[in-house]
Amino acid sequence: MSYPWPEAGTPLEQVATPMPVIDEDRMAANIARVQAYCDQHGKAFRPHIKTHKIAAVARQQVDAGAVGINCQKVTEAEVFADAGFDDILITYNILGSAKLSRLKALNARIARLAVVADSEVTVAGLASTFEAGRPLTVLVECDTGARRCGVQTPEAAVALAEQIASVAGLRFGGIMTYPAVGGAAEVEAFLARTMMLLSQKGIDCPVRSSGGSPDLFAAHLVPSATEHRAGTYVYNDRSMVRAGHCTADDLAMHVLATVVSRPAADRAVLDCGSKALTSDLLGFTDYGAIDGFEGARIVSLSEEHAVVDLSECTKPFPQIGTMVKVVPNHTCVVTNLFDRMVFHRNGRVTRVENVDARGAVW
Amino acid sequence: MSYPWPEAGTPLEQVATPMPVIDEDRMAANIARVQAYCDQHGKAFRPHIKTHKIAAVARQQVDAGAVGINCQKVTEAEVFADAGFDDILITYNILGSAKLSRLKALNARIARLAVVADSEVTVAGLASTFEAGRPLTVLVECDTGARRCGVQTPEAAVALAEQIASVAGLRFGGIMTYPAVGGAAEVEAFLARTMMLLSQKGIDCPVRSSGGSPDLFAAHLVPSATEHRAGTYVYNDRSMVRAGHCTADDLAMHVLATVVSRPAADRAVLDCGSKALTSDLLGFTDYGAIDGFEGARIVSLSEEHAVVDLSECTKPFPQIGTMVKVVPNHTCVVTNLFDRMVFHRNGRVTRVENVDARGAVW
Repeated sequence: MSYPWPEAGTPLEQVATPMPVIDEDRMAANIARVQAYCDQHGKAFRPHIKTHKIAAVARQQVDAGAVGINCQKVTEAEVFADAGFDDILITYNILGSAKLSRLKALNARIARLAVVADSEVTVAGLASTFEAGRPLTVLVECDTGARRCGVQTPEAAVALAEQIASVAGLRFGGIMTYPAVGGAAEVEAFLARTMMLLSQKGIDCPVRSSGGSPDLFAAHLVPSATEHRAGTYVYNDRSMVRAGHCTADDLAMHVLATVVSRPAADRAVLDCGSKALTSDLLGFTDYGAIDGFEGARIVSLSEEHAVVDLSECTKPFPQIGTMVKVVPNHTCVVTNLFDRMVFHRNGRVTRVENVDARGAVW
Repeated sequence: MSYPWPEAGTPLEQVATPMPVIDEDRMAANIARVQAYCDQHGKAFRPHIKTHKIAAVARQQVDAGAVGINCQKVTEAEVFADAGFDDILITYNILGSAKLSRLKALNARIARLAVVADSEVTVAGLASTFEAGRPLTVLVECDTGARRCGVQTPEAAVALAEQIASVAGLRFGGIMTYPAVGGAAEVEAFLARTMMLLSQKGIDCPVRSSGGSPDLFAAHLVPSATEHRAGTYVYNDRSMVRAGHCTADDLAMHVLATVVSRPAADRAVLDCGSKALTSDLLGFTDYGAIDGFEGARIVSLSEEHAVVDLSECTKPFPQIGTMVKVVPNHTCVVTNLFDRMVFHRNGRVTRVENVDARGAVW
């Protein structure tokens, strides 16, 4: 795609819209703050790369003290392994011979690779792929209340752990959960009971990995967890501000957009449609906040248009051709729509990075 | 991205998931049916490339009788101009010197390029860019009820047409609207009155372009329109079935997905998250239909997971590792998430096409 990517030094006002941009200083502060929190509470921190999908940003996270990275798919892990990352946890059930064979190749070339499993079917596929000479570390995924994947009880977690531990090509690495927001007590209860049951069986459970950005600063309320995983915190977004996880001053991502139409007194149209913002609502009733124009509501999106209802906007809204800054509801999905990401400091572009793992769904 | 794209001849069951796939015969039938309808009613047909973003598919549409293509952005039009298309309508207000300068270069190299404008600001930008030696055709965009872009009245349309007609570097090409669903009567009234007013001023209005897939087969109820634009019809989707535009047998796109978890009796998890389906609801309360499993509802998406509520599913749902076919709510946005698209016939892959204009938001 022949996008006019800006040179370093370009003023933000000259960046082609629609375009998400990342504030270097805010991102660095987000990385430092979360790492300091985890250090303070003795938790290993493992950032999820889904939010940025950029090797250079993951390098900043690891340089700040992260133990490794968290990916969701084999292709994502391959991209980051190619970039030199050697401690990767893939928090996904890997199924089918094609994916398993690439997972095996990946395991052979990086120092520490681990995956999760929540079923006998998944473990059986892994068991038939890996060998004792180069075993794969497998964590049991536990559903502690988020109602997505995961075994439903500590007893089921132990049964699956025993199955993993019985296979020569696999190593039981511990337990992992993606918890519900506000679920620290449930997570702690599940982890503690699972550890107790495993201990009774004589099975070591070195890693207890919890995660999520909205509850990140409640990680110390889960003493049984050894590590925390989070993605969104690196850029933050409107949903994180609402969750109290950060303030507007911690928002590193904005989507630059241009007013392309002012068809009626109560309506403006921006050039950031669902191909720039996505339709993720995350509980909001509109599709993003327009910086500095609180009453202006993005009430509908089509692929290339964002329709803004101005009826509650008390301040004069910008005219056609003017740039505005939109705070997306959900930053991770915006990243996935762009081939590259523009970074800036003090109003000028610092660098343009390839979104290395964009679209890596496999 | 190192995706394992399938070779021609590969059975669909072996395609790596998640992956949207296109049924060649259904797509060809969709193209033929809509062209025949437009031919029958004397309407020029101009397919919107946003749904497929693939030059080879646009070629099939033009070979079937389409007069040209409809793009939304300059970068999209560049991609299709590079592929040899020489009649392109960009239905967007093009603003700013960078976009205008590329628009000028595009106009210099293809036979017929047109854009739309709905404001004096947009026309002024075009006027300062184009010259009499190589003028640009401009249509006035009219808001006939969809409440997106467009001038609000026939009188405003005429005023803008006069402004366009007065510029040496521009040619007034006619009027264009993206109507509300079910709005044929409003469209006809707006177009007819605008034509009458233009005629009184002695201004020719050769093109009257209406559009939209949900109402495509009501295009004959707008006698004043000379052409119709539509995108979604080529693949169709769940929203088109609901609109009565097509039946389930006309659905050319399915998203192949794999069951990756069966954590509880009433829950399954698929590997087609928002990075495969997007969060577009289009009025539905769930994120897609699972072919053959009517009561199974995709109740939530995260980037890589689709959580399926099985509590109303009377049929046994597939086990972990099994492939299912999902009918997306909205086909166009799925296309935009994948670098390539897989086509098939009789259960086997026929070709893999680059999604040439993926991500072209500029």
